[in-house]
Amino acid sequence: MKKWPVGMIGGAPGSFMGDVHRRALALTGQFSLVAGCLSRHAVPALKAGQALGLDPARTYIDWTQMARAEAARTDGISLAIIVTPNDMHLPVAAAFLEAGIPVLCEKPLALTVEQARHFAERFIAQAQDMIVAYTYSGYAMVREARRLVHDGALGALRNIQVEYLQDWLGNADSDGGWRLDPRTGGAGGCLGDIGTHAFHLAEFVSGLRCEVLSARVSRLVPRHAVPDDAQIQLRFSNNAVGSLWVSQVATGCGNALRLRLFGEKAGLEWNQEQPDSLIISTADGRATHVARGGSAVQTPSLLPRGHPEGYEEAFARLYADTANLLGGHDAPLLPRLADGMRGQEFIEAALESGARYGAWTLLQA
Amino acid sequence: MKKWPVGMIGGAPGSFMGDVHRRALALTGQFSLVAGCLSRHAVPALKAGQALGLDPARTYIDWTQMARAEAARTDGISLAIIVTPNDMHLPVAAAFLEAGIPVLCEKPLALTVEQARHFAERFIAQAQDMIVAYTYSGYAMVREARRLVHDGALGALRNIQVEYLQDWLGNADSDGGWRLDPRTGGAGGCLGDIGTHAFHLAEFVSGLRCEVLSARVSRLVPRHAVPDDAQIQLRFSNNAVGSLWVSQVATGCGNALRLRLFGEKAGLEWNQEQPDSLIISTADGRATHVARGGSAVQTPSLLPRGHPEGYEEAFARLYADTANLLGGHDAPLLPRLADGMRGQEFIEAALESGARYGAWTLLQA
Amino acid sequence: MKKWPVGMIGGAPGSFMGDVHRRALALTGQFSLVAGCLSRHAVPALKAGQALGLDPARTYIDWTQMARAEAARTDGISLAIIVTPNDMHLPVAAAFLEAGIPVLCEKPLALTVEQARHFAERFIAQAQDMIVAYTYSGYAMVREARRLVHDGALGALRNIQVEYLQDWLGNADSDGGWRLDPRTGGAGGCLGDIGTHAFHLAEFVSGLRCEVLSARVSRLVPRHAVPDDAQIQLRFSNNAVGSLWVSQVATGCGNALRLRLFGEKAGLEWNQEQPDSLIISTADGRATHVARGGSAVQTPSLLPRGHPEGYEEAFARLYADTANLLGGHDAPLLPRLADGMRGQEFIEAALESGARYGAWTLLQA
Amino acid sequence: MKKWPVGMIGGAPGSFMGDVHRRALALTGQFSLVAGCLSRHAVPALKAGQALGLDPARTYIDWTQMARAEAARTDGISLAIIVTPNDMHLPVAAAFLEAGIPVLCEKPLALTVEQARHFAERFIAQAQDMIVAYTYSGYAMVREARRLVHDGALGALRNIQVEYLQDWLGNADSDGGWRLDPRTGGAGGCLGDIGTHAFHLAEFVSGLRCEVLSARVSRLVPRHAVPDDAQIQLRFSNNAVGSLWVSQVATGCGNALRLRLFGEKAGLEWNQEQPDSLIISTADGRATHVARGGSAVQTPSLLPRGHPEGYEEAFARLYADTANLLGGHDAPLLPRLADGMRGQEFIEAALESGARYGAWTLLQA
Repeated sequence: MKKWPVGMIGGAPGSFMGDVHRRALALTGQFSLVAGCLSRHAVPALKAGQALGLDPARTYIDWTQMARAEAARTDGISLAIIVTPNDMHLPVAAAFLEAGIPVLCEKPLALTVEQARHFAERFIAQAQDMIVAYTYSGYAMVREARRLVHDGALGALRNIQVEYLQDWLGNADSDGGWRLDPRTGGAGGCLGDIGTHAFHLAEFVSGLRCEVLSARVSRLVPRHAVPDDAQIQLRFSNNAVGSLWVSQVATGCGNALRLRLFGEKAGLEWNQEQPDSLIISTADGRATHVARGGSAVQTPSLLPRGHPEGYEEAFARLYADTANLLGGHDAPLLPRLADGMRGQEFIEAALESGARYGAWTLLQA
Repeated sequence: MKKWPVGMIGGAPGSFMGDVHRRALALTGQFSLVAGCLSRHAVPALKAGQALGLDPARTYIDWTQMARAEAARTDGISLAIIVTPNDMHLPVAAAFLEAGIPVLCEKPLALTVEQARHFAERFIAQAQDMIVAYTYSGYAMVREARRLVHDGALGALRNIQVEYLQDWLGNADSDGGWRLDPRTGGAGGCLGDIGTHAFHLAEFVSGLRCEVLSARVSRLVPRHAVPDDAQIQLRFSNNAVGSLWVSQVATGCGNALRLRLFGEKAGLEWNQEQPDSLIISTADGRATHVARGGSAVQTPSLLPRGHPEGYEEAFARLYADTANLLGGHDAPLLPRLADGMRGQEFIEAALESGARYGAWTLLQA
Repeated sequence: MKKWPVGMIGGAPGSFMGDVHRRALALTGQFSLVAGCLSRHAVPALKAGQALGLDPARTYIDWTQMARAEAARTDGISLAIIVTPNDMHLPVAAAFLEAGIPVLCEKPLALTVEQARHFAERFIAQAQDMIVAYTYSGYAMVREARRLVHDGALGALRNIQVEYLQDWLGNADSDGGWRLDPRTGGAGGCLGDIGTHAFHLAEFVSGLRCEVLSARVSRLVPRHAVPDDAQIQLRFSNNAVGSLWVSQVATGCGNALRLRLFGEKAGLEWNQEQPDSLIISTADGRATHVARGGSAVQTPSLLPRGHPEGYEEAFARLYADTANLLGGHDAPLLPRLADGMRGQEFIEAALESGARYGAWTLLQA
Repeated sequence: MKKWPVGMIGGAPGSFMGDVHRRALALTGQFSLVAGCLSRHAVPALKAGQALGLDPARTYIDWTQMARAEAARTDGISLAIIVTPNDMHLPVAAAFLEAGIPVLCEKPLALTVEQARHFAERFIAQAQDMIVAYTYSGYAMVREARRLVHDGALGALRNIQVEYLQDWLGNADSDGGWRLDPRTGGAGGCLGDIGTHAFHLAEFVSGLRCEVLSARVSRLVPRHAVPDDAQIQLRFSNNAVGSLWVSQVATGCGNALRLRLFGEKAGLEWNQEQPDSLIISTADGRATHVARGGSAVQTPSLLPRGHPEGYEEAFARLYADTANLLGGHDAPLLPRLADGMRGQEFIEAALESGARYGAWTLLQA
């Protein structure tokens, strides 16, 4: 059983996303973390590398050097995992793609849509080699929901409602770190940090594309430098309507990502905080809760019904797909550069609409 | 124990709302239905009156005559209950108010805001004698929610989300009857039929007034003559934002009225389909479900904790308040003409904003 | 529309069960309370009668006199409703049955099974005229559950679990009044007060008869004179097993009556605190919540789907059945004397088994 | 960062428990699987070892040889993980403990309590080196529940209810494999397979010891050779009562392990299928859902609030404790030989009581 050698940029031990990615890698059993650029400074970089069991020779402090050196090795990394603050995503990705190394990058791609478009044009030929970490599309029941919609279980969709609510920025003393600094997190604030997840989820499950939107974008906690709450009316390619509400100041909400689709035949609901089930409701008054792992579900998963899978298992599913991809197989559900671009277009259109008092605004294709 | 004599206009036996009102009256034990104008035609009116045990002499086929006759009797009705289609609400109410008889009227008041404004100007002196049946404000836990918000349990409100979802108009062969005919139900469609309930609920519990809105108003089932789904961005007097989503084609939803308020200190949720509890959530990860009838609740109710109260009990609470009012007592929570006017302003502003592609539109005070 | 004249024994205004019965009567619109024996003392009896609008001539202080007087009137009561403490149930019922007046009586029938057996033998010919208030069998979705089981939706039943949990006797200073006094409430304590409801529910829905049981019967709050918590292993006529757990000291529980049936094909769950739905679960991982009033449900109910019915509506359904019975129609689901006897046998067998360290004990047929 | 070298006996790739253990090991990042006895036959053993990346020299077909060989190596395994059928647990464990290698073993320990007692006497000095995989005690919120009980949040406990329900043996064609064969799974059937988990959970969280029990033990599917459903009355050291219900034929249940504790001050509920929250209920009608990862929780966990942890994370917590233990630290919550013995005593007492028609039976200390 070959393990794919991978490197990580950003994400020193103890950082939330670094640890999350490493556990997801480990869950798959198909990867080996062998290189890293975990800090720009030598001592912390070496310490972090040591803590992760890396060879000091493959503990870098410069990602460009890392890309070149790994590309030159016969045992060089097969994948570069980017878990830096948002402003570094594209520069780092560019270095590795240039060196011919596929990339798995956190969202959102960039600080502005212009940056993202330039990048996408430049790397158009490698668009399939750039994976974007829309984690929630890795949940088995999200994929099952997509399948059900695709197979017509809901009939034609009429209304798509997605909301992603957190409260960690709602306290008087909350410190959003680089996420709340427009220079490192982007001007989108909550739109980039979690709104892109919600937007991808809505398009991923519905199979539709949002064409225009009308946004209300707010800083409900006035001291915040970037939006912390936004609600956005959506219109989709098939004339379905919808709404995306995102907030990081919704007191009482942990990580409440919820998707509801209403079709002619049935409605469907999925909640990230109870990810192992879907609810399918019909006009005869039945609401059927379908459990992951049961024989009524076609999407495969790791654990049997009733043995909860969680966030790491969703993440691991993205990595398992990535391993398939590296092995030359197909991975049609894996988000790539084009999906990352959609998120960037979404942020841009929402900010623009919000600044224009909710004027309906086209998403560039 | 005196029972207040009341009359009903519309609502023959077997009609949904007529039966609902009669059961609510009965639950209070404080009213006696003694007169009615249950049809405009003599035979069905008499049959209906007989079925309800009315004296044939007080079974009318003309509401103007009824108003005059009952006003002239020493044992005349103390209250006229109007459960006709929407287009008749104001003509009937006018007849009774003119005759000096208080009115309890179904919502929405009128077919257009102009009609409602003329009416409101004409009967400005009797505004407190016209009660509007915003049923959901009669639930004990809705009143408890209002109390909690007023007492500061949530802190300053930031975001108010209300949705009211049904699916009975979503089927290919659904027949909305007079509700879908703009001549009898009004041009507002779902905005008038259920949106006014949701709007009142949001203002009733929050204690805030919505000042401007931006609406998306749709006919998701194309053959419908009036809107069947609308989503409306709201801004409130204290700068709180919010959304009201109303649909009668949301497949899988029975009567899913749900209110969520997010304040600086806590969030609060109430669901009409599980009306006996409130959920209060805080940023420390606790979501407390508070049961009606428990000692943690200050709002009184009929039945002990764990013995479900439902829709009729909510309605009966409006009637119990009405009996208080008739007895010369205060009933500060009871919706009156001014509250009915708010609903009418809401419909108008939403339709206007929707027609102008979501332009932010003022609600007239 | 004829209203059946009824009288009430016990249940002065303000008493829990008296008010509950009167509201349920009112909800049906088919009864008129015209006589009462609301106290054994003249002044309170007259005051209570006046508060309820009774003719003073039909306000009695002696139930035997009431039975005779009402039987002698041409407009005498059609039904005597008994809401006294438990020790009075049978003496009062005997007076009215002797006078030829049907009875609706609260459970449990008696203080001891011997009393109940003597009564049942004496009134064997009138067994169908004595209705026992097993309220919970009046919920629409309980009846739907019974129908589903009967129609084979679950397949052969294997295991039946019922629990009825309250906590109002669990506090240091709780005062159970006559319920905790064996002379007025009986030696069964919680077994009689709520256990009989649970036992009836299990047999009513399953369509099976419990043949033997093994009980653990406790006073978990030592100062209580009668049992406050018991758990009882059950074996049914078809070899199904089961358990009945009843507690009035289960801290945190309001009126948590819950029934679960497990059959070869499906499981079914009903919770009294959310009475408008049933959950049917299958081995393929689907749990279908079926809403009262939806087209997937065959049992009729008062209100449409999504408009909650509660405890009073369940009670009213028993009274609607009673009106059918008085009108000469069938009321096959209405509990009668034989069902009351089952409850008494259950209490007796459970106490006996408990006293014998859980020895398996036959229920007398 | 040192990784502890471990070996596995049983659990070839594709087996449920083998994969579960390997993913849990991987999640911790603190172990390295370097040796295995994955089959008794050479070819499958080597293939399995190769699939797991084991050195062929450390791929064994005889566990005794493996124990000796690994003990002799300077880089030998620090832990032997036993995931064989039940009949092999103790023979394998004995080989490794004799060789001085600590063991982590699946439950139940043995086929009979006699075997287990002999083993426990023989290895009394190494009782702390034998860890038993009571997985569910690894959930963060189970540990938080234990802490809350210990800190007095519930007051003195009165009633403890635990149930563990599955349905995978309920179908006509279900094949329980070695679990249903008394020679490999033991005579306890569901008592050993899942009842021991439930029993440990009840004692672990309550901090009490069950002293006597009265059991009903059944084969509800007659063709089963061992019990598939049992319900057991419990009495605890502080006079609390309780019940343990276990079934593998409860149609509609996936892996429904649920614990409820009722104390003088509050009730507490935990459900394995929604493991990230606890519900604490009080007599004032409040039921507080406490979320893992929130600041209201003292027990640490891997992921922030709202990012679901599941079954693998619970298992990983046992392994993280094991790593602590191997590193010379304390791991007071980790189940050891004594806890495994309790499970064996429980099976024995339940079978004995069941055979004696529910006679109350002492658990040997």
